[in-house]
Amino acid sequence: MLKQFKNHINNNLPFLKKSKLLIAISGGLDSVVLTHLCHQLKLNITLSHCNFNLREEESDADEDFVLQLADDLNLEVFIESFDTEAYAKENKLSTQMAARELRYNWFDEIAKQLQYDFILTAHHADDNLETVLINFTRGTGLEGLIGIPEINDNIVRPLLPFSRAKIEVYAKNENLKWREDSSNASTKYLRNKLRHDVIPVLKEVNPKLLQNFQTTLNNLNDTIDIVEESTNAVLKKAIDTTDDNHIAFKISEFKKVNNPKAYLFEVFKEYGFTEWNDVLDLLNAETGKQVFSKTHRLIKNRKHLLLSEIKLNDNQEILINKDDSNKQIPLGILFFDKVDAISETQNHTIYVDKYKLNFPLTIRKWKKGDVLYPLGMKGKKKLSKYFKDEKLSLLDKENALLLCSGNDIVWVINKRADDRFKVTKNTKQILKIELK
Amino acid sequence: MLKQFKNHINNNLPFLKKSKLLIAISGGLDSVVLTHLCHQLKLNITLSHCNFNLREEESDADEDFVLQLADDLNLEVFIESFDTEAYAKENKLSTQMAARELRYNWFDEIAKQLQYDFILTAHHADDNLETVLINFTRGTGLEGLIGIPEINDNIVRPLLPFSRAKIEVYAKNENLKWREDSSNASTKYLRNKLRHDVIPVLKEVNPKLLQNFQTTLNNLNDTIDIVEESTNAVLKKAIDTTDDNHIAFKISEFKKVNNPKAYLFEVFKEYGFTEWNDVLDLLNAETGKQVFSKTHRLIKNRKHLLLSEIKLNDNQEILINKDDSNKQIPLGILFFDKVDAISETQNHTIYVDKYKLNFPLTIRKWKKGDVLYPLGMKGKKKLSKYFKDEKLSLLDKENALLLCSGNDIVWVINKRADDRFKVTKNTKQILKIELK
Repeated sequence: MLKQFKNHINNNLPFLKKSKLLIAISGGLDSVVLTHLCHQLKLNITLSHCNFNLREEESDADEDFVLQLADDLNLEVFIESFDTEAYAKENKLSTQMAARELRYNWFDEIAKQLQYDFILTAHHADDNLETVLINFTRGTGLEGLIGIPEINDNIVRPLLPFSRAKIEVYAKNENLKWREDSSNASTKYLRNKLRHDVIPVLKEVNPKLLQNFQTTLNNLNDTIDIVEESTNAVLKKAIDTTDDNHIAFKISEFKKVNNPKAYLFEVFKEYGFTEWNDVLDLLNAETGKQVFSKTHRLIKNRKHLLLSEIKLNDNQEILINKDDSNKQIPLGILFFDKVDAISETQNHTIYVDKYKLNFPLTIRKWKKGDVLYPLGMKGKKKLSKYFKDEKLSLLDKENALLLCSGNDIVWVINKRADDRFKVTKNTKQILKIELK
Repeated sequence: MLKQFKNHINNNLPFLKKSKLLIAISGGLDSVVLTHLCHQLKLNITLSHCNFNLREEESDADEDFVLQLADDLNLEVFIESFDTEAYAKENKLSTQMAARELRYNWFDEIAKQLQYDFILTAHHADDNLETVLINFTRGTGLEGLIGIPEINDNIVRPLLPFSRAKIEVYAKNENLKWREDSSNASTKYLRNKLRHDVIPVLKEVNPKLLQNFQTTLNNLNDTIDIVEESTNAVLKKAIDTTDDNHIAFKISEFKKVNNPKAYLFEVFKEYGFTEWNDVLDLLNAETGKQVFSKTHRLIKNRKHLLLSEIKLNDNQEILINKDDSNKQIPLGILFFDKVDAISETQNHTIYVDKYKLNFPLTIRKWKKGDVLYPLGMKGKKKLSKYFKDEKLSLLDKENALLLCSGNDIVWVINKRADDRFKVTKNTKQILKIELK
C-alpha cells in the first residue's frame, strides 16, 4: 500500500510534498496508518490530537497512545482537551456535532497560528461510501452522491481512495498498533448502522462494491465538470452589475435555458437558499417580491434578480408582509399560518395572536428606549434592563434582533416573547413563528 | 390513492387518456392494482399475461387468476405460454433475463400488430429504489442513479412515484385479490436481497427514505437537463458533416471544454462505446487510429473524429493492428495479450499462438472457397461443408464472421477455432480472444 499511497500523492496531491502538514490523529487504525504512511514518505508532518473526554479512561489512554507514537516517530504533537458535553449543551448540538465543531475549529486555529498549509484527515473509501449512503437516505443531489471531497479548502484526505480493508492489511503487515474506539462497535449511530448492517450486504451482493463506487465517483465528477461549465456560461451572461450591496442577474438569461430551476439552483445554492420553487417563481413575480435564506436575500426588481447579503445595520430593517408568511425565511425564521394546536412558547418558537399584529412586521436591531412586556410577567421592562437581568454577554446583546409590530416588540428573537401578542381564549387565528 | 393516481395521470401522463393501452399483468399485487386503477379511470385497456411455466401449477393458477380478473372487469385479455428454460438455455441467458426478453418481445409484437399505443407496466417507487441500488453496487453514473424511466419508448410506468406500501393499502381497502409470487419470498435473487436485507435497514435509518428518494430523483433529473443542454451545445458546434457513411465531429470543439472526456462520454454513449480513455486518446492520436464499440467505430481523421456504423458488406473488412490488442473491441471482440494460464477453447473464447499470426488481422464475412481446419479434427474442410455439418440456419450462415490471418481462418467467430493457430508446447506467447 505504501507504493500506491506514494503514487497517489505524486499524481494527485503533489503539493503535499512541499507543505507543512498537520495530521488529525485519534489514535484509531485509520489515522495511525495515515501517520505512518506520511512518515515513511518523509512528509513534513506534526500530529494533533483532541481529547474529547467522552469515554473517561479510554479517552486518556488514547491521548497517551498518541503521545507515545509521536515520541516513537520523533514527531511534534499538539494535544487539546475539551469538555465536549458542556459545549454540546451550551450550543444545542449533538455530542457528535459538538466534537466535530470543536475539532475543526481547533485544527483551524493551530493551522492559522502556526502556519500549517494543510490539515490531513484519515477518511477513507468506506467512510465516503457511508457518507454517500447517509446523504442518499436523506434525499440529495449530485454533490451529495459524491460524498466527501478529497480537498476542501485547507483540509486534505489522502486516504480517500483506499478501502478500510486495505488500510487494515497494511497496519497488520507493518505490525502497527492502534486504539480501538469502543463506540465503533455499537450500532448506536447512523453511520455504524450502515457500516454493520447495510454495507456488508451490499459487498456480499457485489464484492467489487468499493471499486465500483470509485467508478461511480469518477463518472459523477465528470458530470459535475459539465454542470459547472454550463452554469458558469449562463452566469457569465446573466450577471449584469455588481456593487457593494448587491449582484444583479438578468432574468432573461434564466428564461432562455431548458430548465430554469436547475440553473437557479446551481447559481444560488452557495447562498443557502432552500425554497427553490419560490426562487423559480421570482422570475415571473411582481417587482419587490423576495426570497430569503439565512444569510441572503433575492429580490425581483423589474428585469433583474438582486442578490444581497442580509446585514442588519443599526438603521436597517427587514419587512415581512402578510402574505409572506408560510413562505419566507428571513434569517431562518419560519412562519406557520395554519396552526391547530399550540405547544408551549419557547425561546426558539413562539405562538402569537395573528390579528393583534400590524403587518408588515419588521426585523431590526434593538435600540435604546425599546420596551418589552416579557411573556408570563406582569408589566414592562426596558429591554436594556431585561438583557442585564438575563446576564447577556456584550456580543449577544449586540447581535440581539427584534421582531416588531409597529413599534411594539413581538419577540426578542430566540430569547423571549412579548406578553401583548400571546394567544388567549379570544384568539381567532394563531401564528406560529420559529427560528430554524 | 385513486385520486393521487388520477392527478398523476392528468398532470404527467395525460396522453394515456386518449390511447389504446396494453397492461402487462402478472397477477401480483402491483399489476392488479394498476389494472384496477386504470379501470376505475375508464382508460382504454387490454390485459396481457405471460405464463413462463417456471413454477408449475402456480404458473397456471396465475394464468387462471388473470383470466378471471379480465372476466370480472369485462376486459379483453391475451395470454401466451413460454418455455422459458429452453429459451434461456438456447440463448445462454439467466432465467430472469430470458423471461424479460420473452415478455418484452411478445408485448412489443402484440402492441405493433394490434396497434396499441403504449404498454403499461406496474413498476413502483420501491422497484426503482432497488434498481438504483443495484446500479450503485455495480458502479454507475448519473443515469444509473435515476433508475427506471417513467416513459421509455412505448413503455409507460404510471405507478413509478407510488410506494409498495401505498399500493398495498389501496389493494386492501378495496378488497382486491392478487396472487403472491413465491419467488418474492426468497432472497435468491439480488433484487430480493436488497428488498429484504438492505432497504428495510435504510428505512429504519430514515423512515422518509422513499419520499427523499423522489427528491433525489427530481434533483438528478434537473442535473440531467443541464448536462443534455450543455452536451447539445457542444454537439451543435462540433458536428461538421454527415453523409450516409459517417458523421464528422470537429476535434477542436472537444478540446475547448474543461473536461473533454466527460463530453465525449455524453456525445458517444448511445453508440455503445465503453473504452472512454481510448476515445479520449483519439483526440491527440495519429490519423487512422480507431476505437470500436460492438456496433460503431470512431476513427481519427486529421482534424475530425469520424463516427460510422460497422456494417460488414461482402467486400468490407475490419483491420486489427498488432498494437490494437488489449484495447480494441470491434464487434465486441476482446484481445488479451498477457495470458499466463489457458482454459479450454470454447465457442466464444479461443487461445491462439500469437507468433503464428500475421498482423494486421482481418474480420470479414465468409465467402465461397474459404477453408477451415476445425480445431481438434484432422485435416481441412470447406467452410460451406462445415456449416452444413453443423446444421447452421440460413440466417446464421449469412451472418457468420471470420477472424483471419492473411487468407487463413483463425476463428469462425463464436463458433469454431482453427487448428493451425492453436497453442502448442512451443508457443512463446498466447493470445486470448473473446467475444463479449
